[in-house]
Amino acid sequence: MAIPKDARITLDPEEIPKQWYNLAADIGHLEPPLNPVTEKPAKPEDFAPIFCKPIIEQEGSTQRYINIPEEVRENLIYLNRPAPLQRAYRLEKYLKTPAKIYFKREDMSPLGSHKGNTALAQAYYNAESGIHTLTTETGAGQWGTALAMVSNLFDIDTTVFMVKGSYEQKPFRKTLMHLYGAEVYASPSEYTEFGRKILKEHPDTTGSLGIAISEACEMAVKDEHTCYSLGSVLNHVMLHQTVIGLETIEQMKKAEIKPDYMVACVGGGSNFGGFTFPMLRDKIAGKTDCEIVAVEPKAAPSLTEGKFRYDFGDTAGMTPLLMMYTLGHEFIPKGIHAGGLRYHGMSPLVSAAYEKNLIKARSYDQPQTFEAGSIFAKTEGIIPAPESCHALKAAMDIALECKEKNEEKTIVFCLSGHGLIDLYGYEQFIEGTLPSSSA
Amino acid sequence: MAIPKDARITLDPEEIPKQWYNLAADIGHLEPPLNPVTEKPAKPEDFAPIFCKPIIEQEGSTQRYINIPEEVRENLIYLNRPAPLQRAYRLEKYLKTPAKIYFKREDMSPLGSHKGNTALAQAYYNAESGIHTLTTETGAGQWGTALAMVSNLFDIDTTVFMVKGSYEQKPFRKTLMHLYGAEVYASPSEYTEFGRKILKEHPDTTGSLGIAISEACEMAVKDEHTCYSLGSVLNHVMLHQTVIGLETIEQMKKAEIKPDYMVACVGGGSNFGGFTFPMLRDKIAGKTDCEIVAVEPKAAPSLTEGKFRYDFGDTAGMTPLLMMYTLGHEFIPKGIHAGGLRYHGMSPLVSAAYEKNLIKARSYDQPQTFEAGSIFAKTEGIIPAPESCHALKAAMDIALECKEKNEEKTIVFCLSGHGLIDLYGYEQFIEGTLPSSSA
Repeated sequence: MAIPKDARITLDPEEIPKQWYNLAADIGHLEPPLNPVTEKPAKPEDFAPIFCKPIIEQEGSTQRYINIPEEVRENLIYLNRPAPLQRAYRLEKYLKTPAKIYFKREDMSPLGSHKGNTALAQAYYNAESGIHTLTTETGAGQWGTALAMVSNLFDIDTTVFMVKGSYEQKPFRKTLMHLYGAEVYASPSEYTEFGRKILKEHPDTTGSLGIAISEACEMAVKDEHTCYSLGSVLNHVMLHQTVIGLETIEQMKKAEIKPDYMVACVGGGSNFGGFTFPMLRDKIAGKTDCEIVAVEPKAAPSLTEGKFRYDFGDTAGMTPLLMMYTLGHEFIPKGIHAGGLRYHGMSPLVSAAYEKNLIKARSYDQPQTFEAGSIFAKTEGIIPAPESCHALKAAMDIALECKEKNEEKTIVFCLSGHGLIDLYGYEQFIEGTLPSSSA
Repeated sequence: MAIPKDARITLDPEEIPKQWYNLAADIGHLEPPLNPVTEKPAKPEDFAPIFCKPIIEQEGSTQRYINIPEEVRENLIYLNRPAPLQRAYRLEKYLKTPAKIYFKREDMSPLGSHKGNTALAQAYYNAESGIHTLTTETGAGQWGTALAMVSNLFDIDTTVFMVKGSYEQKPFRKTLMHLYGAEVYASPSEYTEFGRKILKEHPDTTGSLGIAISEACEMAVKDEHTCYSLGSVLNHVMLHQTVIGLETIEQMKKAEIKPDYMVACVGGGSNFGGFTFPMLRDKIAGKTDCEIVAVEPKAAPSLTEGKFRYDFGDTAGMTPLLMMYTLGHEFIPKGIHAGGLRYHGMSPLVSAAYEKNLIKARSYDQPQTFEAGSIFAKTEGIIPAPESCHALKAAMDIALECKEKNEEKTIVFCLSGHGLIDLYGYEQFIEGTLPSSSA
């Protein structure tokens, strides 16, 4: 027996995509973001205090393909791109399914997740625009870590406002950001006016993403060489993440894989959008009837239980209003381990695709997803991130449905990251103390 | 500017080596291990109670090349082999050195280190020999995790005796082993006679590697379907690890890289041996004058400060006597973060190479190595394991020596693993509380 050709499908560095794919070109009419004060469509200049010009242009662009600058392509090497596409032979055997299961390995980035793909592009454009400092918020710490790491590649500084609760509970995430050279403040902080105001009113607060966003934006607004950077939801973030799906399509061509299902987890939508939008392009063009499945936690079921309407992107109600599936901006998801999926809303592009019935959605409770993750650890040897366990669980369920119907379908899911830095959830799972996550 | 060809040099899965290289064929006379009771050369049957037959044969073999079973090659995919060889362009720039620096990426295994390479081969041979259970000891937890993970690939069980101090201080390593399905006992345990004896005499002991080895061996001796597995030091372990160096040589050929230095950290010798022995073969054959450098911690300087003599492999004095560089089997290294380098002795093959002046050695103090690691994090984006920081530090020093002499030399070092599961040392480094490690 030789190594099967589709055991792991790799690409060479020079095969990193040369263009991103922009779903806004093909999805049809998109309701524009609204200025939160005037409730009129937001103009590019509304974003100028916090984003640099190329990012604002990409945010509003309907151009189908956008060139990836050569400096961005080169630096994707540092995120270990191209990422392999791998077949889960042992998982298939465990499930006794006739289905074929493949997974795209975003876990191989030194950051442990897909987050660096957009962080890198954003750092590049900001550096090109003369920006010296990027600010952002982080909850669990993945996004802040990603931005801190890639900013070094373009010699810009990073300031991260980390939700105080996480800052105190996740010292190693803070260590990682410090190692990458970032300034990290527990939010609310004494560093901003808004932070000081909150601290005065609520001295014992453990903070929130909403507060942290406000602090990061305040810092960006106040300095012309400082911009704000967002890790999910917006169109330009989805755009940058399409390297995931474009590589996957190239790999599937190479190995003659025709997917019947493409599956990814969704929080704000960035790994889902990045992984599935290029396939959605082909679906809209009538070239495939691949079923595209978004998987969310029961704790934040914006697609399966939310409403499609205008809502704020943040909790505090300061961002532009976005047309999206939302549970209401004041909805606070339960404290699940899949911190990256704890979001009340959904990327407007993902929302539009769902509204148009181009994609499906499923939701799972926390213990089910960790059980899937523990099976994956034993069969494939990789510990999936709690977020990625959602995609995995859905892929396994679809494979079992194929078994019932005796259908030899092909399922491709996105392993958005590994769980080595967040093993506490697995510890609870093993000890039987992992709580349900239903909203 | 396009992506430089040597930015990352990859191999396809089918290019995984087909044979291991055995340095015992070329190193000349090796003093045999001695039976600890008779002090006569140990016979194969001396090892039979704890090792399976193919492992014992490999341990004593002087055959130059040993075929890698196809099942082992296939499963190396699960360790993300072949591993990339990457150029540290940004580190070179930071150091302003004319030297070229490359590093072999053993950090990309889902285990986070090179340990799986031999674990996999050992699990295979034991499964083939009808063994149902493998036992081992683990200190910090890396080796136990590796064995637990790969044992699943061959459907054998793993029992790990984890030094009680680590068991209590490193809950996530225990979680990882549990996730991979291993039984994990805090050692000394109630599970073995020896453990019960120790517990009776010293009820409050935090354990030691010596005790844990004794418990693991007792379990192997008592059951004919149970064998013991060791993660370093012995010849068969070095043999299995040569996939690292064989891949590296192949990659260097592809990219026309002629190394002037090959550098790796040494504890028991497994990543060093695996990485450098194939180059040592060429050096012995007079085909290269590449300088081969072993880097050890000041806390356990067996090569730079130890003596070449017969000594026990364990602390308790129960194993065969090995001819090696040693600080004495009762030497207890300071509690440095590079737990994988805390060993009183040295692989007999590495020791023989050092005795014959075929390799050089350097030693570093803990804070220097973490400083190197933090520079690597900022420049190359990867957090090196505390062990790997030793190799990195030496590579950086050599690059600076090249700068002084204005020599455009090529340095290749082994990044034996990442530090994402052990960030505490970096936290101490950042906070300025990291202690010196001098012995």
